[in-house]
Amino acid sequence: MTTIKLLFHINAPRQRVYEMLTTLDGLAGWWTVQTSGDTNTGGVIQFRFGEAGNDMKVVEQIPAEKVKWECVAGPADWIGTTISFQLDENENKTRIRFTHSGWKDDGDFFAQCSFSWAKYMESLRQLCQAGKREAFGSDGYRK
Amino acid sequence: MTTIKLLFHINAPRQRVYEMLTTLDGLAGWWTVQTSGDTNTGGVIQFRFGEAGNDMKVVEQIPAEKVKWECVAGPADWIGTTISFQLDENENKTRIRFTHSGWKDDGDFFAQCSFSWAKYMESLRQLCQAGKREAFGSDGYRK
Repeated sequence: MTTIKLLFHINAPRQRVYEMLTTLDGLAGWWTVQTSGDTNTGGVIQFRFGEAGNDMKVVEQIPAEKVKWECVAGPADWIGTTISFQLDENENKTRIRFTHSGWKDDGDFFAQCSFSWAKYMESLRQLCQAGKREAFGSDGYRK
Repeated sequence: MTTIKLLFHINAPRQRVYEMLTTLDGLAGWWTVQTSGDTNTGGVIQFRFGEAGNDMKVVEQIPAEKVKWECVAGPADWIGTTISFQLDENENKTRIRFTHSGWKDDGDFFAQCSFSWAKYMESLRQLCQAGKREAFGSDGYRK
């Protein structure tokens, strides 16, 4: 088993970052405009990217500290894997530790998803800091 | 030992991508404006980010196919590690497999560098596709 790990800082309060991870409007601002479902703990959120997509079950939420999802539908290699966002404060910024755990191997799809997650984490950063919306399907999406 | 692996596509010819990886002007366009040194095989390139930075020895170059560096100065965890860019064609785009190999562990610095490398690979992509210069120290740098 292997894990995608990304660490970065956002120059915005933890509560703001947490909101962007736990509301449909926030998630639609940085990941994909086609976001729907239930963002409460135990709920399932649907993320769509044209014909592709995934469903994430919200398994844990601690305000301004942690969000954890389990993939319950989507690419075969993703099903059963978990995604977590851990937030704390460091040098007056919000530090985010992102993980995507449970990968069978670190082949091409793992490497492609590592790049893609980092691109969307940068999109989250731009949303929180500057209000820029760069989600998939938005005018600001970086092709 | 563990490895940062990123895979992504650039909508530009392989030769164009290769040039951006093997010329001072290209490297200064996507990584840092403070780039100097010798980009020939066996040469050493200096990359500076304000007071920080690293020196990379060019250990292998195959036109339009591969570039490999060895870190010979910089952060302690980087010294002796290797960075490679492998290019091929896939669906009429240039596919890049990026690796940074030789990490002792996948702790916070590894996670931070994974995010940072992906951000600069996106910068390389924007440079090759649209001529946008987002290197550290440039006006286009995404703060």
